[in-house]
Amino acid sequence: MKTAKPDLDLRIDRALELPMYQQICQRFKTAIEQGSLHAGDRVPAVRALAAELNLARGTVEMAYRILTDEGYLQVRGAAGTVVSPSLPPPAILKPQVVMAMAGQAHAATVDRDGKAPKPLQMGLPALDAFPRKVWNRLVGHRLRGSELARLGYPDPAGYARLRERIATYLGVSRGVTCVPEQVFITTGLRNTLELTLSSLSTVGDEFWFEDPGYILARPFLQNAAVKLIPVPVDEHGLMVEAGKRLSPNAKFAMVTPSHQSPLGVTLSLERRMALLEWASNAGSWIIEDDYDSEFRYQGRPLPALKSMDRNDRVIYSGTFSKVMFPGLRLAYFVAPVSAVARFQAVCYNLNAGCPYLFQAGVADFIAEGHFSRHLKKMRLLYADRRAVTSRVFQEILGDRIRIDLQPGGLHILAKLADHEDDVMLAGHARTAGLAVPPLSRWYINAKPQQGLLLGFANVIDEKDAIRLALKLKQALT
Amino acid sequence: MKTAKPDLDLRIDRALELPMYQQICQRFKTAIEQGSLHAGDRVPAVRALAAELNLARGTVEMAYRILTDEGYLQVRGAAGTVVSPSLPPPAILKPQVVMAMAGQAHAATVDRDGKAPKPLQMGLPALDAFPRKVWNRLVGHRLRGSELARLGYPDPAGYARLRERIATYLGVSRGVTCVPEQVFITTGLRNTLELTLSSLSTVGDEFWFEDPGYILARPFLQNAAVKLIPVPVDEHGLMVEAGKRLSPNAKFAMVTPSHQSPLGVTLSLERRMALLEWASNAGSWIIEDDYDSEFRYQGRPLPALKSMDRNDRVIYSGTFSKVMFPGLRLAYFVAPVSAVARFQAVCYNLNAGCPYLFQAGVADFIAEGHFSRHLKKMRLLYADRRAVTSRVFQEILGDRIRIDLQPGGLHILAKLADHEDDVMLAGHARTAGLAVPPLSRWYINAKPQQGLLLGFANVIDEKDAIRLALKLKQALT
Repeated sequence: MKTAKPDLDLRIDRALELPMYQQICQRFKTAIEQGSLHAGDRVPAVRALAAELNLARGTVEMAYRILTDEGYLQVRGAAGTVVSPSLPPPAILKPQVVMAMAGQAHAATVDRDGKAPKPLQMGLPALDAFPRKVWNRLVGHRLRGSELARLGYPDPAGYARLRERIATYLGVSRGVTCVPEQVFITTGLRNTLELTLSSLSTVGDEFWFEDPGYILARPFLQNAAVKLIPVPVDEHGLMVEAGKRLSPNAKFAMVTPSHQSPLGVTLSLERRMALLEWASNAGSWIIEDDYDSEFRYQGRPLPALKSMDRNDRVIYSGTFSKVMFPGLRLAYFVAPVSAVARFQAVCYNLNAGCPYLFQAGVADFIAEGHFSRHLKKMRLLYADRRAVTSRVFQEILGDRIRIDLQPGGLHILAKLADHEDDVMLAGHARTAGLAVPPLSRWYINAKPQQGLLLGFANVIDEKDAIRLALKLKQALT
Repeated sequence: MKTAKPDLDLRIDRALELPMYQQICQRFKTAIEQGSLHAGDRVPAVRALAAELNLARGTVEMAYRILTDEGYLQVRGAAGTVVSPSLPPPAILKPQVVMAMAGQAHAATVDRDGKAPKPLQMGLPALDAFPRKVWNRLVGHRLRGSELARLGYPDPAGYARLRERIATYLGVSRGVTCVPEQVFITTGLRNTLELTLSSLSTVGDEFWFEDPGYILARPFLQNAAVKLIPVPVDEHGLMVEAGKRLSPNAKFAMVTPSHQSPLGVTLSLERRMALLEWASNAGSWIIEDDYDSEFRYQGRPLPALKSMDRNDRVIYSGTFSKVMFPGLRLAYFVAPVSAVARFQAVCYNLNAGCPYLFQAGVADFIAEGHFSRHLKKMRLLYADRRAVTSRVFQEILGDRIRIDLQPGGLHILAKLADHEDDVMLAGHARTAGLAVPPLSRWYINAKPQQGLLLGFANVIDEKDAIRLALKLKQALT
């Protein structure tokens, strides 16, 4: 029995997002797989390795326990811990694989725990332009001024005043007529989907999903008890006729009519009517994910699909992540009238409710007019950042990309030639510190287009755009 | 065709918790069922009824749409809306029934949206004793002082500093050795269960559930893809041998070892060892719901079951709802080491994360020593309130109840004689404005004991206790 060779590379990288115990696990696995560690080799003692790597003993201990649990290592009491004589059995759910997947999906839009988001990260509003002073004043006021009972459980359906404000806002701005009882507050789209499925679905229901479609909703839906039916999207949005062929009796259709995620196209009027008619005839529900419709730079904002919903088939889903900021964790949906009682029952059974403080803050933010002022300001700011970003990137990256500006949203689609490999290029960009997710990943069955998704909301000026475009150009060569 | 009789009682009660459109629905249904409205009768126009009841038209409109959707009313264009000639078809999921159920389950522990909780409401800490000034200072400080990036998406697994604080606290106070990477922040027990099942379960897994057991977890679990196996509880806690007979290969066992919910008994050492041994042999997971173990009034607090978990089978679940306040919507769990990677992957795929502000506030509250000071203060306060409440209620209610004081927790179990009907009595108490849920409702298969659950945390002094006991006595006669 010998101890691990001194040339074994167990160095960890503190800048990596992967937790350190996982880095240790990976180093050991790689070493075992590549033959630098052999069956029966003794591995360093926990204390020694922790000291060497300058880590807490618990971290190394955890890595060793995982490796033991997965069959890579064996504990032999006083004899120390050794590399297992037999290869680990294949796990049903191989954690590293899931981790890798999760990391990629996550990388698409989420920055981690207060670390500054990577440049070009999509899905984020302009954090620098949010009126934090006003917000802090409103929240501080509620913090000091609210009754003792506010320390208790919040209403699982949402804070009444906020539900009222949202109902009014949707009527004025999105053409959606609803009463506050139809508005439910959630922590985000996934919470909205969870409540929707719990209220309205039975196991095995078919579910139209745009192809390509919102990548972060996919894991939740694939994990749920519905059957995802990818329905192709063209320049007029979801191809309703294709959906009807693929799954005529689907119970749900989820769409992004204002600004298709990720292609940016608008669902045509003809398709809207066809979709509503289908849902009425089939008794299906449409989930309208209206995630960033507030930002439109050409012509007037389109009314929501929900505004045309004569037969009460549409669940309208909105969020404060884009119009205010994502750290709020506040979103909402409008339930069809006939389903309100079911949603309310499910809310009270399944939903924990959102903290009062932020709900009250948002209600005040709307009531005092800051919300509409902020939206107006952001429309101008984003129009500017979008124009600068698209111009500069097209100029600097030249033939390599083709930017097809769509009228709305917070990201630009930079298309690549068919022979390019967007996943590989996005990986290079990521190594260079840029978050530009590959378009092809958003596809399920449809033939993927190659492209990169560029969030422009935090590109502050031309200089910034030039710096980022040059960086991307270099990463792509 | 005639219009609804003038004596039709459509008055609504603004003090009732039921939304107004639902009250309207119920009045109409009752009127139809009792024959004061007949098939073909014309109902008042929306505008007229709204004016009469002084409600928004939308509210009446929604009630009418629900009634139409459910088959009670029929719209006849210019002829107005009439009572449907045929009875409504039975709905698969009858919303009113679900609502009624939800209302009851909910009534057990949740007060609504900032309304003062009802006296004796269980599941609430002493809201009056929470150090709000300190809390407001800490949160206010974080509100003003945090970096711009905190407006972005929070880490779905939780704020790193809070995870560290919890790991340290659990080591010192609950005998649970863990590293921060094992600690995941959630919005509550249901979120914890959701992540646990998504990480570790497959469809149809059997799940031991205490009988009687935590009533608010039941709807979620019954709705999930696991098979609930009620396992009886006696004075030593969960009957492990019975569980092994009923479901030897269950994938999960959920227990409340420190203070059984609702009976208040402690899981004996023998049973703890038997449970851990079973889980190790069967490859099962134990979910330890340690919801209020911090409060123990006789002897020392027991270490958590997790502290004895040599084989990495226990998921430890804790919450800040009882030790701080429920409006936080913050809880946490400690994942078994071998499952950390799976939990992390699921978190990143399914979890939205909790707002940074409160997580940071709690981390500071712990770091600055307020947390342990508050706990110490609360132990004394609760010991006092518990002694006063149990003495006064026993004196005033005499033979009617038998209080069997258990060493911990925030509620007292007032047992009733077997011939009593606790559901009916709890209903009377509720009408009198007291929230004392009936014990029998917490049972699934086991022969229910009759009793009432009295939350004592907000009974401020002897005078208050006497007033409430007299009120309860009157309600029970």
